[in-house]
Amino acid sequence: MNITLQDIQTAHERIAPHIHRTPVLTNKSINAIAGCDIYFKCENFQKIGAFKIRGGMNASLSLSTDKLKNGLATHSSGNHAQAIAFAARQLNTRAYIVMPNNSPAVKVNAVKGYGAEITFCEPLQKARESALQKIIDSTGAEFIHPYDDYRVITGQATCVKELIEEAGPFDIVMAPVGGGGLLSGTSLSTHFLLPDAIVFAGEPEGAADAVLSIKTGKPEQAPFVKTIADGLLTTLSDKTLGIIQKHVKEIFLVSEEEIKKALQLVYERMKIVVEPSSAVPLAAVLKNKNQFAGKKLGIILTGGNVDLAKFSQWFQ
Amino acid sequence: MNITLQDIQTAHERIAPHIHRTPVLTNKSINAIAGCDIYFKCENFQKIGAFKIRGGMNASLSLSTDKLKNGLATHSSGNHAQAIAFAARQLNTRAYIVMPNNSPAVKVNAVKGYGAEITFCEPLQKARESALQKIIDSTGAEFIHPYDDYRVITGQATCVKELIEEAGPFDIVMAPVGGGGLLSGTSLSTHFLLPDAIVFAGEPEGAADAVLSIKTGKPEQAPFVKTIADGLLTTLSDKTLGIIQKHVKEIFLVSEEEIKKALQLVYERMKIVVEPSSAVPLAAVLKNKNQFAGKKLGIILTGGNVDLAKFSQWFQ
Repeated sequence: MNITLQDIQTAHERIAPHIHRTPVLTNKSINAIAGCDIYFKCENFQKIGAFKIRGGMNASLSLSTDKLKNGLATHSSGNHAQAIAFAARQLNTRAYIVMPNNSPAVKVNAVKGYGAEITFCEPLQKARESALQKIIDSTGAEFIHPYDDYRVITGQATCVKELIEEAGPFDIVMAPVGGGGLLSGTSLSTHFLLPDAIVFAGEPEGAADAVLSIKTGKPEQAPFVKTIADGLLTTLSDKTLGIIQKHVKEIFLVSEEEIKKALQLVYERMKIVVEPSSAVPLAAVLKNKNQFAGKKLGIILTGGNVDLAKFSQWFQ
Repeated sequence: MNITLQDIQTAHERIAPHIHRTPVLTNKSINAIAGCDIYFKCENFQKIGAFKIRGGMNASLSLSTDKLKNGLATHSSGNHAQAIAFAARQLNTRAYIVMPNNSPAVKVNAVKGYGAEITFCEPLQKARESALQKIIDSTGAEFIHPYDDYRVITGQATCVKELIEEAGPFDIVMAPVGGGGLLSGTSLSTHFLLPDAIVFAGEPEGAADAVLSIKTGKPEQAPFVKTIADGLLTTLSDKTLGIIQKHVKEIFLVSEEEIKKALQLVYERMKIVVEPSSAVPLAAVLKNKNQFAGKKLGIILTGGNVDLAKFSQWFQ
């Protein structure tokens, strides 16, 4: 399947009544430090606190009324779980969320707060999948994968569309990469709307599966996993890798120290709360200033759902 | 001297080209928790990261060209120092700032960053004043007090004016109280623009000089000083006390735990970075829900200049 510009436009119209049109912010001191002109799309102010509502809502709204009645299902311990729970509540249906039994209470409570039914499983991929399959078999609920789903990718593509409409054109557009849903959607929208713009991504050294996958040409596990950017721990799928190979020019790796430094800049200069994952593209810019000098950049700040107790590990 | 509505309007026109018109934000979950309808004026997004630029800029702009040439002077270790340093740079003159020699490096650097001349002194009121007097005697610079100055109070009054213009009318308007510059200005503007609205203030139990001063009728020291709301450590002056006695209905005291809880709500729900002082009025609302039930409130979030390393003490 190929996602078209028309698909993205349709998705945008469909989800617009259910999401915030988030603000685009600029910051003079960060521009001075980075040596370029950056427009930040602030999805930390989005409903559920992250861009994930876009894909979750688009997938949900594309279901027939009959199918929707059976409910929505997914496995996730992060923002996608909240997105599906929120979408189900908005659309008057049920959400079944499989979460690992070591999920932080704060995330479990957020999902519960939207009225979802939570099934706990062992924190293993296989346990997740079998728990989810059981639910689907017994309820007929629709499985909405966090990123290996063209409806989800199309929904995430609406974010950069808004950014381009509001502050474009850009020389460069950037997003972080985890499972690749946001990055592949971003690269597609940019390809259609700004064919001359370059799409770059940022990835933590401590979750470097995407860089490796690009090298080998198939979805790989990260060589090791250790990063504060906990939204980027997932690995690419065939669908997201295919789009990224085609439309993303380069993925920059950044260290934990570089992520923390960029994160601190966003907090101190912009005065906004973002997740560490959000700071990864800015960290890549600050690490590779020559490649960005004097350019006009659009960067997606992906979300703002943080465990405040972790601040002490980030800022010292 | 009596500050008039015309004075506030003139100040606003004068400073408008030099400051940001900061956004007014609302948050559904905080409204649901508080049981009222709150409009937050976000001075954390203001230039220098706090409302103080309003008073500092208004005082500076009210000087004659000749007087301005001699420079601006003040003693402060906080946001007012940055305000005067910023104003001096904007207006092409010098700033002389007296700071206690135990000021945090981050604050010293911020003031230095605006090109101000810093004189360090012992961290005692008397040492501050004599150091400042020496500077004034030798330079002819204009002393701009952080709050005991009608030009400063008039400048701070412009903040709630913008809030009322954008989201008013309100049943209740609130600000925190330290030296009382913001609170007295806020109460005056509200008195003129919304004569039926009530002005309340919030004050930390650990810096309760204003509540005591209202009782005795003269500026008092706090019984004890111990609070994370480090913008509120100063005591009222005759000028600010006089206005507050006339136009503020009540000052609510809040504990450290209550401040931290309100602060956490702002970070987690609104996704913005504010100083602990900013959370004091919201803490007062959450502590006294009955008095605010169903009302429409305007609250000033005073600033966002935080030492990120302190997060670990606030959020556990």
